[in-house]
Amino acid sequence: MDQALAVNRVREGLMDDWSILENVFKLLQKDDTFCVDPQKWNKQKIVSFLQPDDLKELINLKIRETETSTLAEIEQLCQSVIQYSVKTSHGRFHNQLFGQVDPFGLAGALITEAMNGSSYTYEVAPVFSLIETELIATVCRLAGYDHGDGIFGPGGSMSNMYGIVMARYKYAPEVKTTGMFGMRPLVLFTSDESHYSFVKASHWLGIGSDNCVAVRTNERGQMLLDDLEAKIIESKARGAQPFFVNCTAGTTVLGAFDDINGAADLAERHGLWLHVDACLGGAALLSHKHRSLIAGLQRANSFAWNPHKTVGVPLQCSLFLTRESGNLLERCNSAEAHYLFHQDKFYDVSYDTGNKSVQCGRKIDAFKFWLMLKARGYGQYGHLVDHAIDMGRLLEDKLRERPDRFRLVLQKHEYSNVCFWYIPKDMRVPANEETTDWWTRLYTVAPKIKEQMAYSGTLMVGYSPLKAHNLGNFFRMVFTCFPVLQIHELDFILDEIERLGEKIVA
Amino acid sequence: MDQALAVNRVREGLMDDWSILENVFKLLQKDDTFCVDPQKWNKQKIVSFLQPDDLKELINLKIRETETSTLAEIEQLCQSVIQYSVKTSHGRFHNQLFGQVDPFGLAGALITEAMNGSSYTYEVAPVFSLIETELIATVCRLAGYDHGDGIFGPGGSMSNMYGIVMARYKYAPEVKTTGMFGMRPLVLFTSDESHYSFVKASHWLGIGSDNCVAVRTNERGQMLLDDLEAKIIESKARGAQPFFVNCTAGTTVLGAFDDINGAADLAERHGLWLHVDACLGGAALLSHKHRSLIAGLQRANSFAWNPHKTVGVPLQCSLFLTRESGNLLERCNSAEAHYLFHQDKFYDVSYDTGNKSVQCGRKIDAFKFWLMLKARGYGQYGHLVDHAIDMGRLLEDKLRERPDRFRLVLQKHEYSNVCFWYIPKDMRVPANEETTDWWTRLYTVAPKIKEQMAYSGTLMVGYSPLKAHNLGNFFRMVFTCFPVLQIHELDFILDEIERLGEKIVA
Repeated sequence: MDQALAVNRVREGLMDDWSILENVFKLLQKDDTFCVDPQKWNKQKIVSFLQPDDLKELINLKIRETETSTLAEIEQLCQSVIQYSVKTSHGRFHNQLFGQVDPFGLAGALITEAMNGSSYTYEVAPVFSLIETELIATVCRLAGYDHGDGIFGPGGSMSNMYGIVMARYKYAPEVKTTGMFGMRPLVLFTSDESHYSFVKASHWLGIGSDNCVAVRTNERGQMLLDDLEAKIIESKARGAQPFFVNCTAGTTVLGAFDDINGAADLAERHGLWLHVDACLGGAALLSHKHRSLIAGLQRANSFAWNPHKTVGVPLQCSLFLTRESGNLLERCNSAEAHYLFHQDKFYDVSYDTGNKSVQCGRKIDAFKFWLMLKARGYGQYGHLVDHAIDMGRLLEDKLRERPDRFRLVLQKHEYSNVCFWYIPKDMRVPANEETTDWWTRLYTVAPKIKEQMAYSGTLMVGYSPLKAHNLGNFFRMVFTCFPVLQIHELDFILDEIERLGEKIVA
Repeated sequence: MDQALAVNRVREGLMDDWSILENVFKLLQKDDTFCVDPQKWNKQKIVSFLQPDDLKELINLKIRETETSTLAEIEQLCQSVIQYSVKTSHGRFHNQLFGQVDPFGLAGALITEAMNGSSYTYEVAPVFSLIETELIATVCRLAGYDHGDGIFGPGGSMSNMYGIVMARYKYAPEVKTTGMFGMRPLVLFTSDESHYSFVKASHWLGIGSDNCVAVRTNERGQMLLDDLEAKIIESKARGAQPFFVNCTAGTTVLGAFDDINGAADLAERHGLWLHVDACLGGAALLSHKHRSLIAGLQRANSFAWNPHKTVGVPLQCSLFLTRESGNLLERCNSAEAHYLFHQDKFYDVSYDTGNKSVQCGRKIDAFKFWLMLKARGYGQYGHLVDHAIDMGRLLEDKLRERPDRFRLVLQKHEYSNVCFWYIPKDMRVPANEETTDWWTRLYTVAPKIKEQMAYSGTLMVGYSPLKAHNLGNFFRMVFTCFPVLQIHELDFILDEIERLGEKIVA
């Protein structure tokens, strides 16, 4: 086809093409898309799992130069994509640290997509820039940061990286221009149960994973401050330069909270930047009952929080906050970009956030969260967070009521994660027969039940080992603000694991 | 309010809350939300611009603990947010390197938001994982990469960073573990008109902006290969280690394309990694007439392409591609994350992409682009890209027809950017009176007209200086695949700039 013909055809079809939105909205309005109605969870599958090769048979994935699709075919494709995708908003999806989305969050996300803005300048995103600024100020207040600053980024790994980069800039600003060559090694400290993004960041930022020192944890998953201090002193003794300590507020697996105040004392004593990876546990900022989990946060130089975890904001929504004033965030990350951040503009350019960011174009991630908070006020989310944590404690009780079939990893978890093993029928033996072999067999159970979960589509709970503590695979149940679970749902979870575990041979 | 009461209230209201989606859909369906119908552009404003303080008066931005909003109030808020946001899909928004979205792209984006998936594992994102893999394979084929690999990331700055990190890993894999301390300085090269993300990346990655060497460009904005080689040799002579060259395919301002083949010869001769920042110009991969702009791309070790630019995919959609085989991308970026990337899974874990990424959770950015390509085939986008470039050449002709009022920065641009000055009435003088003072005054014109544009809402075209070439502010008109402009629209653009420039005193 020649260009003029092709171009005319697209142009003339364009108004019709826009009708695809209405058809897609209709697909989204179907009951089986979100599966949010508790009355129907028994009948709705979380996923219709197919192996990759089978799925490829069902959906024609191939892209070709001249092969086009009609509106009806596109609608059918969308229908299939929805059908075979995991319904993460189904009330029985407990597989990740995120779960069902808040409808107000999703409404905000749809608007964000539709407006297709970018966060760098007030000019292109006037409303969204003000909203981002307002939200950052609100979270700074909640955290006890008097003159805080911050930026939304594309996820927790990046937000943690912001913390390391900013710490390094404060410690050795010349790195921005001359790099780290010829320096004595910079060393950062984080617990052996902290998120792997610190290891990845150490590589990317040129620090090296060997200089990302793993601090030991207690059996509850909390960083051992004695070991932290010993390792700080040790690294100084070998001529390295400690500059950064990370505390985790809500570890990925156990949901453990490090002692921020204790770490802050050490960080102050040794002149180190204290960052808190509160990607998961930052929701405690909103809590009415569990605010003490993050006691000391106001002493941290920076922290990261992903409201897309626990709180129900659609992915991605990640905040990096710092209590440093004097425009340190912008001084750290700015570069001269004359085509974008003109100073000869006709409005207050302090609303242009691009110079604080390592990104250039940046997705609008603040609005959906803001809309949620406008709808419910942050106090209500606090109650929902507390309810999610309560559910965790209630599940522990229920697990203890079935001691022959379930075993808790911790008797009491701190947050809304609950970790436990399921013991299949043929492994229920007296305690003295729980040999090393028995445990090794037990560690193979969760992956097998997980496979059953995928094929039945009735429940999704993740599993994990805990290498730092030499523990093999166990289930990690995660409670989030949404769905707002009732207690009988906890029985379903355990009953269903038992039902699926019926046939397991470990 | 106590917790039980609050939690019950949220739970009981939840099914009603989901109705907000339908109301939001209705707002999105209104004519004035997207402004895509050319018949109505004259009557629809791109933006109702307000200064920050005035906008704050109009929209109650404040978030409070106990202040909630009814569904009707939330709808009203959404209405206001849409009303005061920039309509980037309005056919007269030409302010950024992105413009109107393709309706199929937006349909895909809405589904992505609704399904709220994350790209790390096949388990959580079965369909989306296959789609990402398919799309990466397709783009690798288009680029001439036989055994290529790649990953979607949150924007071009990050995609360029992937290139630098991977180059460094290949050049000095020990950096991953031991860092760059004690190394002779690593040096990268990119032109003085390339994107500022290379400078930011050099800081973040610990290399330092001094070691991001700016190579001079010719008047057309293309990197001077003589200067590149001289600077490579110079840096070796002073004991530094050159490891990375960036070619830009489509510079931010002029839309210039560096000579990739020439740079590849140099990179090979000096043993350097060649990356191509094709964030803007990668769309030439689809072109039928302008494929030669990126001739030599298959020789680059890696490149970045943002289909959210030019092509009309909603933000964010950014690809990092590499021709390196042997799983180098994964070996570079992997970390042990036992809770997520189990090897004891019940499906082929090669579809788990998380170990290739520096991120953990990762937004689904592939699906919306895939849906577009399924709808139209990539050949049609090629025609649209060619049409956008043709529009650029036609605008140049029209600018030349008004020589007293407009002045081109380049007589012929290479891509769909067209840069020009507007000359206000009182500055139209004989050529010999175009003194340095005259030029200095001329440079103040674009910002003043830009202000008029914002307040009139009739047209948005960006402006920029070009410091590397000592040029002050000029307009940068950007053509994109959407809207599919007709030629009379070009007259509107120039007429409107003249109309708005009427009152300007330079």
